[in-house]
Amino acid sequence: MERIRPHTLSGFMELTPDKQLRFERMAEVLRSTYALYGFTPLDTPVIEAAEVLLAKGGGETEKQIYRFTKGDSDLALRFDLTVPLAKYVALNYGQLAFPFRRFQIGKVYRGERAQRGRFREFYQADIDVIGDGSLDIMNEAEIPSIIYRTFRSLGLERFVIRVNNRKILNGFYAMLGLTDKAGAIMRTVDKLDKIGAAKVRALLADECGVSPADADEILRFISIGGSNAEVLARLEDYRGRESVFDAGLDELATVIRYLSAFGVPETHFAADLTIARGLDYYTGTVYETVVTDHPEVGSVCSGGRYDDLAGYYTDKKLPGVGISIGLTRLFFVLDDQGLLNPELTLAPADALVIPMTDDLSAAVSLATALREAGVRTQLYAEKKKFKARMSYADRLSVPFAVIIGEDEIASGSASVKNMRTGEQVTVPAGDAAGVIKAGLSAFGSGRLIRG
Amino acid sequence: MERIRPHTLSGFMELTPDKQLRFERMAEVLRSTYALYGFTPLDTPVIEAAEVLLAKGGGETEKQIYRFTKGDSDLALRFDLTVPLAKYVALNYGQLAFPFRRFQIGKVYRGERAQRGRFREFYQADIDVIGDGSLDIMNEAEIPSIIYRTFRSLGLERFVIRVNNRKILNGFYAMLGLTDKAGAIMRTVDKLDKIGAAKVRALLADECGVSPADADEILRFISIGGSNAEVLARLEDYRGRESVFDAGLDELATVIRYLSAFGVPETHFAADLTIARGLDYYTGTVYETVVTDHPEVGSVCSGGRYDDLAGYYTDKKLPGVGISIGLTRLFFVLDDQGLLNPELTLAPADALVIPMTDDLSAAVSLATALREAGVRTQLYAEKKKFKARMSYADRLSVPFAVIIGEDEIASGSASVKNMRTGEQVTVPAGDAAGVIKAGLSAFGSGRLIRG
Repeated sequence: MERIRPHTLSGFMELTPDKQLRFERMAEVLRSTYALYGFTPLDTPVIEAAEVLLAKGGGETEKQIYRFTKGDSDLALRFDLTVPLAKYVALNYGQLAFPFRRFQIGKVYRGERAQRGRFREFYQADIDVIGDGSLDIMNEAEIPSIIYRTFRSLGLERFVIRVNNRKILNGFYAMLGLTDKAGAIMRTVDKLDKIGAAKVRALLADECGVSPADADEILRFISIGGSNAEVLARLEDYRGRESVFDAGLDELATVIRYLSAFGVPETHFAADLTIARGLDYYTGTVYETVVTDHPEVGSVCSGGRYDDLAGYYTDKKLPGVGISIGLTRLFFVLDDQGLLNPELTLAPADALVIPMTDDLSAAVSLATALREAGVRTQLYAEKKKFKARMSYADRLSVPFAVIIGEDEIASGSASVKNMRTGEQVTVPAGDAAGVIKAGLSAFGSGRLIRG
Repeated sequence: MERIRPHTLSGFMELTPDKQLRFERMAEVLRSTYALYGFTPLDTPVIEAAEVLLAKGGGETEKQIYRFTKGDSDLALRFDLTVPLAKYVALNYGQLAFPFRRFQIGKVYRGERAQRGRFREFYQADIDVIGDGSLDIMNEAEIPSIIYRTFRSLGLERFVIRVNNRKILNGFYAMLGLTDKAGAIMRTVDKLDKIGAAKVRALLADECGVSPADADEILRFISIGGSNAEVLARLEDYRGRESVFDAGLDELATVIRYLSAFGVPETHFAADLTIARGLDYYTGTVYETVVTDHPEVGSVCSGGRYDDLAGYYTDKKLPGVGISIGLTRLFFVLDDQGLLNPELTLAPADALVIPMTDDLSAAVSLATALREAGVRTQLYAEKKKFKARMSYADRLSVPFAVIIGEDEIASGSASVKNMRTGEQVTVPAGDAAGVIKAGLSAFGSGRLIRG
């Protein structure tokens, strides 16, 4: 037979079973955290009509998109979960209760240049709250709480949610008479961390046509820092000059005011006037999340408030707020940086039943009873030497091996071996599930991320 | 702004939130049942190199496949989960412990003719056990137990797992000297249910070139029925004439012998000699699952034993056994036939916190405390009338509304309303989570399927 070399496309993540278990754990933490905040799961097709996906048209996206024809249909693979959400809400408007809160964890496709750590197929994990006509600022205030709980549930301790408000920025630039240039200025200012203040000042003059005095004013403004209370106090100095600014400041103050009631400690939150988020799309609060010890990773969870989700599809005004986690890239980075907790033992089964006799009835009955009791159980049925069987148990990292030999059958018992401690006890078969479940608490309950 | 009509492609399932919650429940039951048997989750790319996916080549599959180029890559969307598994095992052979037991629930793509109840994008939920060189018959004996538990966990009561063994069929046709014609005969015999014995006899003569005597012999053979013991007894009459037949009979006897230890009642299992499964691929035990009251739906879970998973990619012999559930079609049929249990209340949240004051601190703190306690909680923050708020709670089907007004704030309490019974109690805020959790057991615990 002529053979084809098996391979997986470059830019497509495919994990070994041990890593897949960790990835699943990560996705499960996100699912359950999102559900805890009352978001409903949504699943939309991977393929959409190209005209629907590209309604907004334009630029980088269109170059990267996977687009093809089937029959006479012009099709494309989704490149994010926001455009399909906009389509879904416009299409199902009459059947949804607003605010509509949905989460979606799904694969998206972008034909980026192949590069280590860059993926062409990757999971996004998104939540959005969509209002019908209006949406209260409290929805923006709640988001840091969701980000905080998500990363804490994953085990991450040292991270900061950086928050700004686009109205504050837009209002500030309006005060300077720089509204026309605000977009270009924000893109330049966004580089502050990377290139430093001097170079930003030069670029503001050269590329944005900002006067030296205004450039200084801008740099002074975005360098406002300190505690949340200090930032708010310094922003109050600008109040009364521009209504959009004042509205943004009120919103930021509201977000900060409810932080503690939402369970977010001040240590994990920073009002940060340098955050703008690239997209023109955002109109209010914007969020970024950085891992304190790995700033080079960039933001691991970003999003913000927008005023018009689905203008390309409907005349309904649908403001919303949402965040997105690039799950595939996050997992890659965690693994790559050694941040996955090696103490966390994950196995495809809690127990491996190993029969030592030709008749497997007793072993099968025990496996059935264990499953009945909720113990994830594998029955080892291959006719291999005992050593090969135990080595299989080791390779799977199963916490318990349950050995059923002639002695056990004769006495109606089971020998339960804790694979980590090596301790083995022989107990009545009916007690095996209890022994295993009592021992399981030591396994698999650790944090996914260390540090 | 020019607007694009939002639409979802024909043949692509996209559900309203209430149905999506049911679909998620179904997928979750499958995930947890598969995990109970020690299968490890796997996730492979949706896109593969066309040459990899089409290594086997041929026929219907190739016509239906979504295939396109991106840059100079010839790509295709997976049309099942078996070919990607074969690629995965061949590619990662050295890193896997065998038997390798994996489950995968994922979307696959087939450009079928658009038709009601036919999907071009649909979920398959597969399990497979792959051996390295050999795989014990006990793995085949375990499969009915997995099917049984899966459908019972979904709530289905009246269904039958029909089992046959390809070696019995192949051996039988060898006895008659009809090995060359066995494929054609099996395809004809497969129509017995639909067209009846007389037409099958005619087709056997006209299309397969089988003599009248042999046709009678074949019809007599496949009409063997009765209890499992009776079927085995009648098959024993053929023993000793053909070694492949004898091996198949031994395997079937083993599968039946362990049924009860695996927890499968005889009522839900039938040895059925008419089952062949279309694919030439299967070499041993084959499975179909039919819903007793809806035979017209066809098999809802099928699979079998194969001897060569990945011959197109590797010279390693990798025998396996697997089953597949077409989840999207199953859900469509259940919904369409009214088999989804309307008594099962599923909601995106357990509780909706409704603040009645301008300052939301107390409501936010309570929502945070409820989430801390594991209660899925939504905070209603819109400035709407009370009636609109309660109507929102109704539309979401949330079991509990928690009202926080001035009285509650003053007394540190919360008013918890059971939305189903209408009963409302005012309790200390710290007790609200307990009241809700106690009441939740009545919700969402029902069966997904009725009957």
